[in-house]
Amino acid sequence: MRSRLPLGLLLALSLLWLNLPAQQAQPDEPRYTSDGQLTRPDNYREWIFLSSGLGMTYGPLITTGNSEPPHFENVFVTPRAYRAFLDSGTWPDKTMFVLEVRSSASKGSINKGGSYQDELAGIEVEVKDSSRFPGKWAFFGFGKSMQPISALPATATCYSCHSMNGAVDNTFVQFYPTLLPIAKAKGTLKH
Amino acid sequence: MRSRLPLGLLLALSLLWLNLPAQQAQPDEPRYTSDGQLTRPDNYREWIFLSSGLGMTYGPLITTGNSEPPHFENVFVTPRAYRAFLDSGTWPDKTMFVLEVRSSASKGSINKGGSYQDELAGIEVEVKDSSRFPGKWAFFGFGKSMQPISALPATATCYSCHSMNGAVDNTFVQFYPTLLPIAKAKGTLKH
Repeated sequence: MRSRLPLGLLLALSLLWLNLPAQQAQPDEPRYTSDGQLTRPDNYREWIFLSSGLGMTYGPLITTGNSEPPHFENVFVTPRAYRAFLDSGTWPDKTMFVLEVRSSASKGSINKGGSYQDELAGIEVEVKDSSRFPGKWAFFGFGKSMQPISALPATATCYSCHSMNGAVDNTFVQFYPTLLPIAKAKGTLKH
Repeated sequence: MRSRLPLGLLLALSLLWLNLPAQQAQPDEPRYTSDGQLTRPDNYREWIFLSSGLGMTYGPLITTGNSEPPHFENVFVTPRAYRAFLDSGTWPDKTMFVLEVRSSASKGSINKGGSYQDELAGIEVEVKDSSRFPGKWAFFGFGKSMQPISALPATATCYSCHSMNGAVDNTFVQFYPTLLPIAKAKGTLKH
């Protein structure tokens, strides 16, 4: 019996160690530089997809001219925050959203109509971090930049629009069809 | 030293055990009934999102009439298959895709134009499982059904269309903007 314990321990620790790289490679919380700038989340395409829209006119920062095809917008949220929302209908501290904006195309390969997603136009990030931001939530307009950036000033329209119109705690759950029924069931809808 | 080993083992096994439920709740491979029907994947919204389109006219099984707004289509793939594709530009055996079709809406909350996603219209599933299907890939038209179903017959148009037009191994990687550069870099594009 005594001789089998170290083997079991080694096996268990090996399995734990094998499981670590995937977790470390997918940080689920905002990371900041020493001067408080947010690092661009490089793995957001592996987060939970909430929904997408085409050419929505609620006032995103990135818009097209009249002559360009409309943009797609994909919304992703961190997996830990998503699971917390499923349980509670609310967003925990350290929640991160990415709004990814892409150009649309209509004719390519076998597609002859409608719209599909093409080039990256930029990303915007919304973070809930009550220890850093007086209003709990902050917005970061990365665009195509890979560099850390500071939060947009509180005068940016995204703050007032999300605060006034977001159906659940500064977020547009009214446009996320799998989360809206959960917010209704948990009684966390503002509108 | 001897007295600390069982504690370390218990701790390691506890951590492993705590980590297990999340993995068991998210099966990453196709599951079949005893008579070979595919079980509806109930957690596909937690898989990796590849892209979405609006009103694409490449011939999906679920179409709208002329008077209805066009449908959105979201594509999800199993996380293990996604990671394998990032490494190799190819899909491993047991890969699963879900094509989720949703109605679109244009006017709601603060949105005044463009389109956002609304009610579920149905899902279709594509599975790569060389031990079960002669052509390796099979298609399952669940629609809104939650019940297990059999694969569509090999005469269904999805088989010939995917085989002829899919850019990588029966799949439309030409429409997945984050995977297309990987297939190009790995040299796995057919077209």
